[in-house]
Amino acid sequence: MPIEAFSNQNCAIARTLAFLGERWTVLVLRELFLGRRRFEEMQEELGIASNVLSARLSTLREEGIVERHPYSTHPGRYEYRLTEKGRELQPVLLAMLAWGDRYKVDAPPIDTVHADCGHAMHAVPHCSRCGGELTTRNVRPRLGPGASAAQRAAEERRRAA
Amino acid sequence: MPIEAFSNQNCAIARTLAFLGERWTVLVLRELFLGRRRFEEMQEELGIASNVLSARLSTLREEGIVERHPYSTHPGRYEYRLTEKGRELQPVLLAMLAWGDRYKVDAPPIDTVHADCGHAMHAVPHCSRCGGELTTRNVRPRLGPGASAAQRAAEERRRAA
Repeated sequence: MPIEAFSNQNCAIARTLAFLGERWTVLVLRELFLGRRRFEEMQEELGIASNVLSARLSTLREEGIVERHPYSTHPGRYEYRLTEKGRELQPVLLAMLAWGDRYKVDAPPIDTVHADCGHAMHAVPHCSRCGGELTTRNVRPRLGPGASAAQRAAEERRRAA
Repeated sequence: MPIEAFSNQNCAIARTLAFLGERWTVLVLRELFLGRRRFEEMQEELGIASNVLSARLSTLREEGIVERHPYSTHPGRYEYRLTEKGRELQPVLLAMLAWGDRYKVDAPPIDTVHADCGHAMHAVPHCSRCGGELTTRNVRPRLGPGASAAQRAAEERRRAA
C-alpha cells in the first residue's frame, strides 16, 4: 500500500503520517526548525540528493507547510520558511526529540532550551483544557464527532462483546 | 537510502524515525494505545496483510517497545502490550493527533479525554523544567553534550559566517 493511501483513512494520525512518513520529510522540517532555510545548507547538512530534497520541499509547499521567499534576484535564489501550519508541527518534533534523547542516543546532540526559563529541557504534554500533565494513565480515547458510521458500528460491537 | 540508515545519524529525531518512519508502525502503535492488543483485532482494524503486521510487531518487540503475553495456552495465543518505552511514545502520537485534528480532518474521528478534568482536549507541550508552555518563539536549539566533533565544527563555521 503506498503511503499516500493513509490519507484516505478516517484518522488524524494516519493522514498526518501520509506525508510525515515520507523518508526525509521530518529531517527537512528539522533543518527548517534549526533555522537552515537555504537549499544548499539543507542539502549539505542532510547529505541528501538534490532531486530528493527538491521533491520533499515541493510536497511541503503543496501541503502549505513551507513557503518559498526570494533572497536574491540576480541570480534568483529562494529560501524556505515554515508557515504557521508548519510551525505548528513543532510539538511532533519536540516529542520525537524527547523520546529519542531518552532511548536512542547516549547524550543529546542538540539541547532544546526554553528561552523563558533559560534551561535545557524536554517537552511534556499538558492538557489544553485544564493545563494538567498528560500521562498514559489519564488519557482516554472516545469516538469523536468526525467518527464514521463504520467506526461507530465497530465501537458498538466491541462494547457488546 | 534505506530508512535504517537514519539510525546512524547523530540525531535523536533521525534515530526515532529509523523505525517510526516504517509504514504502518505508528498505526500499529495507535492500535495498542487504543487498547487493541490482539493480532486479529489489529489486523481487522488496520486492513493490513498479516505478514506486514507480523513484521511490524517483530520490529517493535526487538526495539523493546512491545511485549508479547500469552492469553490462552490451548491453543497458544498472545496479546501485545506496550512496555514503558512504548508507552512513552504517547506524546509523539498525541502531537500528531493534535496537528492532524486541526489540519487534516473536518472533525476529530477520535476525541482524547483527559480523565483528570473530564474534557476532550489536545496536547500542548510544556517545559519539563519550569512548566511553562512551549511555543515556536521560545524554544532555541543549541549544541548538546552528545554533539560530534563534526557538528561542533559546522556550528563554528556557521557562527563565523
